[in-house]
Amino acid sequence: MINVADNNTIFIGKKPTENYVFSTIMLFTNGASEVSIKARGMAIKRAVDVAEIVKSRMESMMKTPIKYGDIKISTEKVQREDGESNVSSIEIVLKK
Amino acid sequence: MINVADNNTIFIGKKPTENYVFSTIMLFTNGASEVSIKARGMAIKRAVDVAEIVKSRMESMMKTPIKYGDIKISTEKVQREDGESNVSSIEIVLKK
Repeated sequence: MINVADNNTIFIGKKPTENYVFSTIMLFTNGASEVSIKARGMAIKRAVDVAEIVKSRMESMMKTPIKYGDIKISTEKVQREDGESNVSSIEIVLKK
Repeated sequence: MINVADNNTIFIGKKPTENYVFSTIMLFTNGASEVSIKARGMAIKRAVDVAEIVKSRMESMMKTPIKYGDIKISTEKVQREDGESNVSSIEIVLKK
């Protein structure tokens, strides 16, 4: 299963892109007006892919236009065995 | 050398992150008030890293606050040997 927080947020991890696309579209079809896609490090590219595929698929298959809301970039501190390190993160908001 | 277009745009490729950080900071120190960082596919993560490192370094070392301008996500068509394929892209605007 995909990790979905209460507030319509999808956390992108190492699963196939298609899994996250499916989960995001499910949130929209279940009534969400806004979905936030979050990722950090290597998952950032996948988050961008998910957003673009969801947008295209919602428009072509469900005739539902999707717009981008805020896109935010930041740096998070992550604990590793050898201490703390910085990792870039992205949050992409999609709106119905 | 890094590929820098006339209009203060940095295209992120496969070089080390630090090269693009340097080029971006050079544009700002040479008078640019705005720099656009563009990347597609696998380079998207590097673009986000470059933006965050430039922001942090301009603030800590040059006491120059940097803000995010528009962050845009889109899909580009790329020609490959076996036909056309879609690739996600990002454009991140940094403002002095």
